[in-house]
Amino acid sequence: MSADDVKKLAMPIGDAMFTQRSVRRLKPDPVPMELIHLILEAAVKAPNGGNRQPGRFLVVTDRAKIKEFGTLYHEAWWAKRKEEQGWTKKADIPADDKNYQSSSGLAEEIGDVPAVFFAFTVPGGGASSILPACQNLMLAAHALGLGSVPTTLHPTVMDRFREMFAVPKDATFHFCIPVGYPRVELKPSVRRPTAETCFLDRWDGKVPWA
Amino acid sequence: MSADDVKKLAMPIGDAMFTQRSVRRLKPDPVPMELIHLILEAAVKAPNGGNRQPGRFLVVTDRAKIKEFGTLYHEAWWAKRKEEQGWTKKADIPADDKNYQSSSGLAEEIGDVPAVFFAFTVPGGGASSILPACQNLMLAAHALGLGSVPTTLHPTVMDRFREMFAVPKDATFHFCIPVGYPRVELKPSVRRPTAETCFLDRWDGKVPWA
Repeated sequence: MSADDVKKLAMPIGDAMFTQRSVRRLKPDPVPMELIHLILEAAVKAPNGGNRQPGRFLVVTDRAKIKEFGTLYHEAWWAKRKEEQGWTKKADIPADDKNYQSSSGLAEEIGDVPAVFFAFTVPGGGASSILPACQNLMLAAHALGLGSVPTTLHPTVMDRFREMFAVPKDATFHFCIPVGYPRVELKPSVRRPTAETCFLDRWDGKVPWA
Repeated sequence: MSADDVKKLAMPIGDAMFTQRSVRRLKPDPVPMELIHLILEAAVKAPNGGNRQPGRFLVVTDRAKIKEFGTLYHEAWWAKRKEEQGWTKKADIPADDKNYQSSSGLAEEIGDVPAVFFAFTVPGGGASSILPACQNLMLAAHALGLGSVPTTLHPTVMDRFREMFAVPKDATFHFCIPVGYPRVELKPSVRRPTAETCFLDRWDGKVPWA
């Protein structure tokens, strides 16, 4: 990692944050290992509790392993749908629910993505010591023209997942983040107005821009 | 929020990520409300589960309220030290433990900082739907020349904290982030080599740059 590598992350931070999208349709084209390295260096710079650095990233680029993992991911995704929505097949997903339509597509295709990042913590810290790093990871990927989306797994597959990647029992899983070049044009994300989700001085206190 | 506002976040994202520091010594000078607004707009752009947007930010700029909160924060900080390290007074903190020396200073001074952001979720999502936004918040602050540090509270003060800011029972607290102009020069953060914390294809699998 040289200063020249960091210069590849040239996108103004405002552009990066305001244009970041969750990208679920990724090309199979490989992600160069030097970009994976740069993304991980950027990720670990995020703050973590007491700088104890309990965060661990496992990046998988082995095509056969990703294919094998894809089957597990598909099973986990449908286990969550059954549990949360009662859905058991594609026809159960409302046609106008773009989010789940799109993520069901990812569940079918994730075996073909070029890279999957898994975020963990080992004892010494939890979510608050790894999720900020995951956001750095996704923003850095976006600034390099790569798409990503934070996803989770489901208890039903966790034993097999740990076995597949030799993940020790005391490591806590947080995020599964597929990364690749987008197959779609990125549209701006849609959020509720901050005047509805942000407060001044007390809960429900109106912000001046409301 | 206009495109001109976003242009204030001009810092290249690599510079922002690689120079971000946890800043615990902040000037009392006020943070302009338009920067607070910009920071919050950037924050909510981070991904969240299913775009259900359970994240809530409460920003406090009222000096009297921050002063009152400062007393609670000090109590919470020492409650954590007693619990985690058995420390009950400043002399118990090892002189060479820069992290805790510095954060004990923040515990004394937080009542004088110009702005404190509190991050919550309401039912519909948890840490994974708000901590990425907190990282956007801190990176955006840094790109605007503002320092910040993610901190937590302690169960012993939570009832009084909720009462102080009228926080409803079903809102989950995640982070307390004081923000202000740094009183110190920022040195680069120190991290273990990524070759020790990042793996390829399997747990403990060596990355090519190791």
